[in-house]
Amino acid sequence: MISFKKEENLSDWYLEVLTKADIFDYGPVKGTIIFKPYGYALWENIQKILDSLIKKEIGALNSYFPLFIPESYLKKEKEHLEGFSPEVAVVTYAGGEELQEKLIVRPTSETIMYAAFSKWIKSYRDLPLIVNQWCNVVRWEKRPFPFLRNTEFLWQEGHGVHATHEDSLETVFKALTVYLKVYQEYLGIFGFGGQKSESEKFAGALKTFTYEILMPDGKALQGCTSHDLGQNFSLPFEIRFQDKDMNLKYVWQNSWGFSTRSLGAIFMVHGDENGLILPPTIAPYQFVIIPIYDGRVDREIDDWAKKIMASLKEKNFSVFYDTSEETPGFKFNFWELKGAPFRIEIGKKELENKKLTLFRRDNKEKETLTLENLIDNYPRLEKNFIQNLFQRSKEFTLKNISEPSSYSEFKEIMETKRGFLRVFWCENEKCEAKIKEETKATTRCLPLEEKEEKGKCIYCGKEAKRRWLFAQAY
Amino acid sequence: MISFKKEENLSDWYLEVLTKADIFDYGPVKGTIIFKPYGYALWENIQKILDSLIKKEIGALNSYFPLFIPESYLKKEKEHLEGFSPEVAVVTYAGGEELQEKLIVRPTSETIMYAAFSKWIKSYRDLPLIVNQWCNVVRWEKRPFPFLRNTEFLWQEGHGVHATHEDSLETVFKALTVYLKVYQEYLGIFGFGGQKSESEKFAGALKTFTYEILMPDGKALQGCTSHDLGQNFSLPFEIRFQDKDMNLKYVWQNSWGFSTRSLGAIFMVHGDENGLILPPTIAPYQFVIIPIYDGRVDREIDDWAKKIMASLKEKNFSVFYDTSEETPGFKFNFWELKGAPFRIEIGKKELENKKLTLFRRDNKEKETLTLENLIDNYPRLEKNFIQNLFQRSKEFTLKNISEPSSYSEFKEIMETKRGFLRVFWCENEKCEAKIKEETKATTRCLPLEEKEEKGKCIYCGKEAKRRWLFAQAY
Repeated sequence: MISFKKEENLSDWYLEVLTKADIFDYGPVKGTIIFKPYGYALWENIQKILDSLIKKEIGALNSYFPLFIPESYLKKEKEHLEGFSPEVAVVTYAGGEELQEKLIVRPTSETIMYAAFSKWIKSYRDLPLIVNQWCNVVRWEKRPFPFLRNTEFLWQEGHGVHATHEDSLETVFKALTVYLKVYQEYLGIFGFGGQKSESEKFAGALKTFTYEILMPDGKALQGCTSHDLGQNFSLPFEIRFQDKDMNLKYVWQNSWGFSTRSLGAIFMVHGDENGLILPPTIAPYQFVIIPIYDGRVDREIDDWAKKIMASLKEKNFSVFYDTSEETPGFKFNFWELKGAPFRIEIGKKELENKKLTLFRRDNKEKETLTLENLIDNYPRLEKNFIQNLFQRSKEFTLKNISEPSSYSEFKEIMETKRGFLRVFWCENEKCEAKIKEETKATTRCLPLEEKEEKGKCIYCGKEAKRRWLFAQAY
Repeated sequence: MISFKKEENLSDWYLEVLTKADIFDYGPVKGTIIFKPYGYALWENIQKILDSLIKKEIGALNSYFPLFIPESYLKKEKEHLEGFSPEVAVVTYAGGEELQEKLIVRPTSETIMYAAFSKWIKSYRDLPLIVNQWCNVVRWEKRPFPFLRNTEFLWQEGHGVHATHEDSLETVFKALTVYLKVYQEYLGIFGFGGQKSESEKFAGALKTFTYEILMPDGKALQGCTSHDLGQNFSLPFEIRFQDKDMNLKYVWQNSWGFSTRSLGAIFMVHGDENGLILPPTIAPYQFVIIPIYDGRVDREIDDWAKKIMASLKEKNFSVFYDTSEETPGFKFNFWELKGAPFRIEIGKKELENKKLTLFRRDNKEKETLTLENLIDNYPRLEKNFIQNLFQRSKEFTLKNISEPSSYSEFKEIMETKRGFLRVFWCENEKCEAKIKEETKATTRCLPLEEKEEKGKCIYCGKEAKRRWLFAQAY
């Protein structure tokens, strides 16, 4: 059913499976995609989970800021401008007239939000101000790839404003923690939380934190980011507050985002030779029911299947009952390709025993049990499913971390199996640039758990204190 | 606290109240607004209600199509192009280069969706296809006004594709019915469901249906629209399917939208001399708890208030406990201005009797009751609140429908009190255009409940069959 092998040709496998699974279609403008209903439902379900965590754990309130940013706003923070200028889309006329000032279609909303914050914030009583928005953003991509690099993508961007750097850093880490929780506990994806290097951090940030995930082809994917903006924006945007001591101070800020890129990670990391494997936490249908007839429709089997569907729906499970005219075998393949986490088979035997046969997409195991049993056991079953996915992606990642002892070994690995390289780096940007030039590998992050040690830079041999993860990246 | 009177100066009252209530702020680009958290929460809550109805009652699946539409797409349907050309925003360069084809920032998504549908739909088995998306759209406004006419607004747009005109019309009316339900049963807003005239219908539709709401200044607001597109788009976009009889046929289509304009209707219709009145079905906080101290903080009152908050939150109510340093009187005014539907006052007396005092924002009545009583009665209370709002807006509207017997009387009403004018019109566009030119009144709709009668056109005196509603419009 799938012509490409995941291990041999990841990108062709990916495009074939996503197309056949009805996840997306290409938009007419290069680099844009259409999220078809079966693909969009995944994002809707991630939104529900993440939105609730953002509100509860970070205390952010949702809001909505305009799509169009005056060009002059982008120019206020120099690094930010330099970082985003090459990839913005620009509106030059509207309402039948040429515009006096060009409008940037938001690539991110720091500048438009912070111009408003400077009006809203006057006193320490107005802090912290933590807002979030779910929206579309546009960044022109030279080499687009569905979900991983799209010209337009969907995300949430959270923005915290605080009285002190310490308070702001707390929000930076709360956001990172929420993102790690989503990846690990809801999506079953292993990765490394860590800090970006100076050259890889967000344009305008003091520090950027990330979750770096290893893809099956040995390239890394940045899964999210959380930025400590320090006072880099509050100074040019003049966001000040009167503190309790009556002094006028500049605020400390942070921003953090999680995008539809995460869907690409799910597809790539979990998929197998039969197609997608969708975590039941976010699958459009947790259960797909397939009736098994000897020949034509058996009314009793159909009734039993419908009863099971109704009972599951009553418990708020999302269920699809596949009554199409295809054979059971066809349906099995079809829903395996689409990644349905749990398949319920109902045939003569199941009807006789008033049971159902449950097929798990992650380990392909089947068991026959009662409906009551399934409902009672579901929380454990779902948890086990996610843990199984997580364990697999963790094993794969750990197996693909190398610790080369020389730069020639480093180069050789990058030319062959790739993966993460854990090496000492002197933190000099020149070495980083040379390594990138010669091997296409960039610093992915300094993992949070890395401690200071004594070592020598893999490139220049000079003194180095910490081991960084390098990889080629999406 | 509010300087303008709603009855005397509606637009100044509106802008003052919305600003003081922290609903919105102006964006930097003319006609754009920032939805502040207290304003955005209203839209979030409407989304929850409407999204669930759209899925259940209309059977639509959510999806997401790109923001940018190639200019050539817009040109495929002539009326559609003519209708939208004057108000589109255009991207002419991106990624540092001038684009070969200009990109339209979507004013609505018929063209980009239908180009995709023509690829997706092949057989009668692919029908119906009903998709919906929640997104931002841009329509350049010459005379913007917050929420009612914004250059960028948020909405959902649903699009149905069917094998027959009959099936498509069913979806048109299902959508209209859902919108009426939201306005009437969740927002407490009276209006008229009806059909638009030929000149007022959507650019590209066969017929457009709407819900027309009377604002306090006697002008009408179009609250939503549902369009029968016939085959106007399926022909140029070549959306065809092979029917059961093996013949290739063009599909029948519909589209329908509900936007953040509805928030403007809520503010205008329900507000009073003390500020906003927000329906408890969508208010950011259903309950605001205000502790009443004689002088300084009373620990026991505070404990009792916190206990009430916790109990309400446990029952999934949204609650805000106002512990700021202001006086109770200040807080009462503040939350009345912000439209909090239910205020809970906790003072000495309430503490002694283990009760609470409940203030209803709609009728300003107070009663003292137990927490258990409040929780048990809440569904009835909320229903009564909405019905009360609905009744008020219905009475106001019915009081402001005139049935002038001559065109001079028509003109006089339009120069003085305005409101809806229910009159016979011959359905000739020339009369409609003349009336608009001379009185600024347009046909708002032919109400669904109007039956055929014998009459004479209010303008030309020729034979007319049906009574239309005319009004000046937002």
